[in-house]
Amino acid sequence: MKYSQRVSAMQSSPIRKLVPYALDAKSRGIKVYHLNIGQPDIKTPKGFFEAVKNFDSNVLEYAVSNGIPELIKSLQDYYTTYDMHFDKDEILITNGGSEAILFTLMAICDPGDNIIVPEPFYTNYNGFSQCINVEVNPITTKAERGFHLPSKEEITSRINSKTKGILLSNPGNPTGTVYTKEEIDMIGKIAIENNLWIIADEVYREFVYDGLSYTSFGNVKEIEDRVVIIDSVSKRYSACGARIGSIASKNKGLIAQILKLCQGRLCVPTLEQIGSVELYKTPTSYFKEVNEEYRRRRDVLYNELMKVDGVVCKKPTGAFYIVAKLPVENAEDFVIWMLKDFNKDNETVMVCPAEGFYSTEGLGRDEIRLAYILNEDDLLKAASILKEGLEKYVELKKSQLSSADA
Amino acid sequence: MKYSQRVSAMQSSPIRKLVPYALDAKSRGIKVYHLNIGQPDIKTPKGFFEAVKNFDSNVLEYAVSNGIPELIKSLQDYYTTYDMHFDKDEILITNGGSEAILFTLMAICDPGDNIIVPEPFYTNYNGFSQCINVEVNPITTKAERGFHLPSKEEITSRINSKTKGILLSNPGNPTGTVYTKEEIDMIGKIAIENNLWIIADEVYREFVYDGLSYTSFGNVKEIEDRVVIIDSVSKRYSACGARIGSIASKNKGLIAQILKLCQGRLCVPTLEQIGSVELYKTPTSYFKEVNEEYRRRRDVLYNELMKVDGVVCKKPTGAFYIVAKLPVENAEDFVIWMLKDFNKDNETVMVCPAEGFYSTEGLGRDEIRLAYILNEDDLLKAASILKEGLEKYVELKKSQLSSADA
Repeated sequence: MKYSQRVSAMQSSPIRKLVPYALDAKSRGIKVYHLNIGQPDIKTPKGFFEAVKNFDSNVLEYAVSNGIPELIKSLQDYYTTYDMHFDKDEILITNGGSEAILFTLMAICDPGDNIIVPEPFYTNYNGFSQCINVEVNPITTKAERGFHLPSKEEITSRINSKTKGILLSNPGNPTGTVYTKEEIDMIGKIAIENNLWIIADEVYREFVYDGLSYTSFGNVKEIEDRVVIIDSVSKRYSACGARIGSIASKNKGLIAQILKLCQGRLCVPTLEQIGSVELYKTPTSYFKEVNEEYRRRRDVLYNELMKVDGVVCKKPTGAFYIVAKLPVENAEDFVIWMLKDFNKDNETVMVCPAEGFYSTEGLGRDEIRLAYILNEDDLLKAASILKEGLEKYVELKKSQLSSADA
Repeated sequence: MKYSQRVSAMQSSPIRKLVPYALDAKSRGIKVYHLNIGQPDIKTPKGFFEAVKNFDSNVLEYAVSNGIPELIKSLQDYYTTYDMHFDKDEILITNGGSEAILFTLMAICDPGDNIIVPEPFYTNYNGFSQCINVEVNPITTKAERGFHLPSKEEITSRINSKTKGILLSNPGNPTGTVYTKEEIDMIGKIAIENNLWIIADEVYREFVYDGLSYTSFGNVKEIEDRVVIIDSVSKRYSACGARIGSIASKNKGLIAQILKLCQGRLCVPTLEQIGSVELYKTPTSYFKEVNEEYRRRRDVLYNELMKVDGVVCKKPTGAFYIVAKLPVENAEDFVIWMLKDFNKDNETVMVCPAEGFYSTEGLGRDEIRLAYILNEDDLLKAASILKEGLEKYVELKKSQLSSADA
């Protein structure tokens, strides 16, 4: 039996494909610190669970396709705190940010069309695109420049007649980069001049450090008819398992188009929506605490990485990821080595090779992504193990090279 | 700003597009009996809610992409009662049956490919196909024959080089038809001879009446490498709002392909999966009761319909729908008339025009779908109102016609 080309061509998750090595290490009694996945350990606000537990109907009925009115209201109020103002028919609730991105791409691209995406990017952007025959058209950003955007000319040179939009995450996964107001305005100009949509994945909106000011694409009046804001409760409220995302756009026509896709899948789970109403009512003091926690973790991990000769990375200012260029040839080989051949007092660390976050062949082979989602003590330990492992691995490769020379 | 052709071309839900007329009737103080939607009133088994309420982690984490092991186990056990035996890597949990169908179509069809579907069909089959550029290739079934399948020759004549599979629901939505063992075997033979997949949407498996024996496509050994079984808790356990569906196939290669799509959207909601573990443990006595309840409802509705001159429909033997051919020219006009211009003691009935369940232009214009999802008393009332309305409408059209003649 034959499978479709579009799905056959998809890569398996680069984040998950090395999991067997971790399982094997664990089976040998080794403790593995996971810096490879974006599953936070922060508590989910209790309001979510309380609302779910208070559900008292006998029948778990379909919800409306666009999302329950209470959740849309709750989201409208949340956006207001960022000076974004959406009518209720400008918001759709989705099955996670994932469905929000998939549906938006479907609604703006036909097969063969492409989307400009700064790389390294969230790897599933590629997957969503491939399964609906849309091409990711990458613009490369670099560790040395803290993964900030290249010049307007460089970006514009990638645009062709099949380009329908620009998709980017801000703060960035996997880079942790927060775009400046100038970068946001530049993207806005490019979009206007080339009649492109902007899909702004802002699921890490709250995770901005060092007092940096944050500009949402939803704050730029001139582009409001072409901006689609993607959100999710997953990282924001440490509620990854709720799978509640959303699409917001002042372009009511686009929302009406996407609503047809929402009607096709009938609805998003009723209980998860009821719980999420409460999440979006969480007081902003929650973010201050969480933010401070992540900021400390970032510093721990970054400072330790910087102690290793040859590691290149600017201190990221958002989300909870670091992409670092390592003094190694093949980061995947290093990641596997850490799990297979290294441990310190029976403990080791798992990180994620970054090659899967690029679509340009060969890029990112010497880079890794680290997620700082452990508590400070564990993270300190993990960072020190990683540092030691990396130094040893670099040493080992050098000695292998010189013995090959001999 | 431009939208994609694929989504622009999608029709709005034919089930939902007449809702404004119902809302208007209600605003005029008229009670509307809804026979237009498949939202059952049966109680969701309590185990679901109890399991959800007993969840006691502080963090609502991602679940694994293929589905939590407990739910897969629970589903395996359920299938065993139907003499179907799936390994754990032959099952994937999905966001409703909807995602199960969308992902399966993606994994077997590239843009321009087509899928054989008996019409009338579940309208979203069309929507799922359109948004991924797959064509529905309809084989027409008829009210006069109880919507049973046409001959092997007629079906085979529709197959071309771009045909990748046959998608059908059994028992059927919207027809309520249960395919015979002979029909299942015929489809199996056609699939083997033409190297096609069979996507068997069996979400109404339990709703079979009159002691009829039911054959699942999962019970035919010869085709097990090409059969994909779609299931869902929605109708089975009256848990439509849980959005828990599944894909099962002995073709492990296909499951591995679809798993990539599952990884892309990360996971299905954790709590809904935990609840659904209990649903699939519901004792079969539950189905006996529910089944008997639906059987009685079907009889009430069918008997009342049969009292109207010119109504054509065979008594359906499954699911909870009836498609009936009415003695009218335009069923949508009749449905709107019932909401706008008719009431009996301030009560009226909403049904669903069936044209949207066909992809062949012009078919189904004189047909409606009725869902018997109300309790017996309400249904009896609704059926009698519908009968009276229909008779009056037919009378009215006749008199309009003769006055036009005059």
